[in-house]
Amino acid sequence: MKLIVEPSYVALCETTSHMLLGAMYQDKRVNLSLTIGASPVGVYEIMTKKMKAKAEDFTNVHFYNFDNADVAGHPQGLMPDELGEMFLSPAGVRAENVHFLTTGNYADYDREIENAGGLDMMLIGMGADGHFCANMPYATDLLAGTYALEMKPEYPWYVGLQQLWGEPMPELMVTMGAASLMKVRQLVLIVNGEKKAEAFKTFMRSEIDRAFPSSVLKLHPNFTVIVDADAARLL
Amino acid sequence: MKLIVEPSYVALCETTSHMLLGAMYQDKRVNLSLTIGASPVGVYEIMTKKMKAKAEDFTNVHFYNFDNADVAGHPQGLMPDELGEMFLSPAGVRAENVHFLTTGNYADYDREIENAGGLDMMLIGMGADGHFCANMPYATDLLAGTYALEMKPEYPWYVGLQQLWGEPMPELMVTMGAASLMKVRQLVLIVNGEKKAEAFKTFMRSEIDRAFPSSVLKLHPNFTVIVDADAARLL
Amino acid sequence: MKLIVEPSYVALCETTSHMLLGAMYQDKRVNLSLTIGASPVGVYEIMTKKMKAKAEDFTNVHFYNFDNADVAGHPQGLMPDELGEMFLSPAGVRAENVHFLTTGNYADYDREIENAGGLDMMLIGMGADGHFCANMPYATDLLAGTYALEMKPEYPWYVGLQQLWGEPMPELMVTMGAASLMKVRQLVLIVNGEKKAEAFKTFMRSEIDRAFPSSVLKLHPNFTVIVDADAARLL
Amino acid sequence: MKLIVEPSYVALCETTSHMLLGAMYQDKRVNLSLTIGASPVGVYEIMTKKMKAKAEDFTNVHFYNFDNADVAGHPQGLMPDELGEMFLSPAGVRAENVHFLTTGNYADYDREIENAGGLDMMLIGMGADGHFCANMPYATDLLAGTYALEMKPEYPWYVGLQQLWGEPMPELMVTMGAASLMKVRQLVLIVNGEKKAEAFKTFMRSEIDRAFPSSVLKLHPNFTVIVDADAARLL
Repeated sequence: MKLIVEPSYVALCETTSHMLLGAMYQDKRVNLSLTIGASPVGVYEIMTKKMKAKAEDFTNVHFYNFDNADVAGHPQGLMPDELGEMFLSPAGVRAENVHFLTTGNYADYDREIENAGGLDMMLIGMGADGHFCANMPYATDLLAGTYALEMKPEYPWYVGLQQLWGEPMPELMVTMGAASLMKVRQLVLIVNGEKKAEAFKTFMRSEIDRAFPSSVLKLHPNFTVIVDADAARLL
Repeated sequence: MKLIVEPSYVALCETTSHMLLGAMYQDKRVNLSLTIGASPVGVYEIMTKKMKAKAEDFTNVHFYNFDNADVAGHPQGLMPDELGEMFLSPAGVRAENVHFLTTGNYADYDREIENAGGLDMMLIGMGADGHFCANMPYATDLLAGTYALEMKPEYPWYVGLQQLWGEPMPELMVTMGAASLMKVRQLVLIVNGEKKAEAFKTFMRSEIDRAFPSSVLKLHPNFTVIVDADAARLL
Repeated sequence: MKLIVEPSYVALCETTSHMLLGAMYQDKRVNLSLTIGASPVGVYEIMTKKMKAKAEDFTNVHFYNFDNADVAGHPQGLMPDELGEMFLSPAGVRAENVHFLTTGNYADYDREIENAGGLDMMLIGMGADGHFCANMPYATDLLAGTYALEMKPEYPWYVGLQQLWGEPMPELMVTMGAASLMKVRQLVLIVNGEKKAEAFKTFMRSEIDRAFPSSVLKLHPNFTVIVDADAARLL
Repeated sequence: MKLIVEPSYVALCETTSHMLLGAMYQDKRVNLSLTIGASPVGVYEIMTKKMKAKAEDFTNVHFYNFDNADVAGHPQGLMPDELGEMFLSPAGVRAENVHFLTTGNYADYDREIENAGGLDMMLIGMGADGHFCANMPYATDLLAGTYALEMKPEYPWYVGLQQLWGEPMPELMVTMGAASLMKVRQLVLIVNGEKKAEAFKTFMRSEIDRAFPSSVLKLHPNFTVIVDADAARLL
């Protein structure tokens, strides 16, 4: 693991965008998997500016998403719809370069990625509860590839998602798991803001633990962690 | 993980030697890390025959070992001495191509390997108690790179080693850990014989567990497991 | 370039099969491209034995061929038909793992390979006239990817092919070119027999030269050349 | 080859710096080889700003240069001295992370690089006469690794260098050659300015030709060419 502490969120976004754009300019098909959420907003602004201006430079880049849930009002599932809105559409990515994980195709998704040469880079965030992708505390299978996870009301995070998503709650989520992520050539985690400081301290100190799933990612062979000073202040 | 079940130990050795020799014939420096023990004996017989006959084909291959303990009567430590005797000497490997992990250099060993381009392939065995390299049950740090492990008499495996090694027992062993192994480009595990059948069943079914350290290796991104039918009979 | 001189054709076949089989046992999709002709006969015998016995170990391996010509009596083209007969059928390779270059798809073939993760290994032979794949002397575009080559009667090799193939001669051949081969992760060339000794001497000494196309392959970044003593006797 | 045409030199520098910085943030030793000259000035300004601010993020990055000549007044040779002045010193690179090619070590330089894991990325420019590194027209060995090149007064470029460098002229230059460059994982060429437009047109159209050495680089397996609109205007 390589830890980069940036003085500000702006610097974090700049550094992260350099890693992603740098990979995209390669002379080969490049497969990326990108997170939704608040953390990458500034990253995608930088990337979108570059990509909209010169779409022809990026026809070699394919996008995969890493989790999904069938939430009402989201025809492609929640996460693909959000990624479309916050990045794929503004960046002008062609439909043929987009590959979504769904509750229908998850059992074949690792194979699909393998048959396309594997993922070159994945950008993830970390939940305040330690989740990565949709690998939620206590519900995570730490040895799984892409799998389906039951949404049980007894899980501590269930009520929070219920409030966000409304009823009816899906019975499962699908997500790439730790075994899928280990196969990604470069894994990039971004964590920002004071609200994540406690969680980031836990991330740094925790053993491998299903109660804090992202702990297992510290085993990744090429893993860059970029945090801003606010998130790093408890180290 | 890719599982290959061979009908016999002979077939296991053939397949394993193909992987190792195949990698060695590359047009580049190749860094290998090889296990001692009973399992690879037949593998090294095949390799030694090829290597002794044509030493000039293998000057690009460097050998690293992955664990060590200062046991009396072993000037370079126990494991290097055994690897020397069972493989490096008979194969005619030049001293300049051999790089030993010792209790003196372990803190720098991951860096040394990184500065030489990383390990291309590692061959390991699995203990009946689930250990890999010297990552022993209950004593293993599952997130560690190369590290030192205390030899406490209360560990269940202590007495067994004591009987093997005699007194005085070393106070620590050094070993590459799971984080070091994740960085190896290809990891190969061989398991053979009826005596390992129970352990191999546990390996296949176990969650990540410090009581059975090799369980964590199932996360490795390019991991080939070769077993003979005897070891696989409980699957 | 790494040069391996084997004492005999049998040893050449053994070493070559180790490289191919070794790569195939990986825990990932493996894309191979294999030559037809007399040189690999012994290599395929070794591989076929292993593959027929345990087809399940090789479902991750995909096969691409690298040249083709529409010769009468060959429904899939000459080279695919011969590869099928001498290797793919006896080895029991599933149709879904076979991907043929044809006069119809050649313009898209490099892209197809790129979209499948690229070729991991290619095995080629060398013509006594220095050709590789169907890159024939004087007709070769040394900077081309996969392309079509005109069959002009004035080329010195035309009559020879005409005698082999009979009438009507095709107007073009398709072949992967030097730029395609540079992208293959490991390139393996085998040359055997006294009849190739003169050509092999030329290969070793020649500058990059369209009159001896394989000369350009000496630029390949991971290139293993395996010859028997007969072919190497003029070095 | 992937061609990126940027609207301006500023955009060219931004894109190029993204590729370099992106690679440098990896969780591994990263070996780079960087050009001197006018073209990269703006690239190094961007990189220097990032690197000076946070030296600790770049201790994993090592720098190699690719050519040299013993010119009076340059204790380390001409090119190392210039790279030091224009980039290494302002960026605050530690001496232990710098590895210079010299007239004394050139015969071992490819081996030194191989033993450090190979070059991850190289940034080169192109001379108006088509040279790359110090591979000069007519004097270039297109199949060479790192080699020494005689400085003969009859070469068309001799007088130009003489005027630049003054007397006494060195008798040779050392340079990485095309075979060394093919082994670099990512090759990046930048070309800018109207004065290079004619040369860039030649680069794009030329066969492999010792009169225009950079023509051979079009065979590189992961080759990104970044030009500004001025340099691309004759395409």
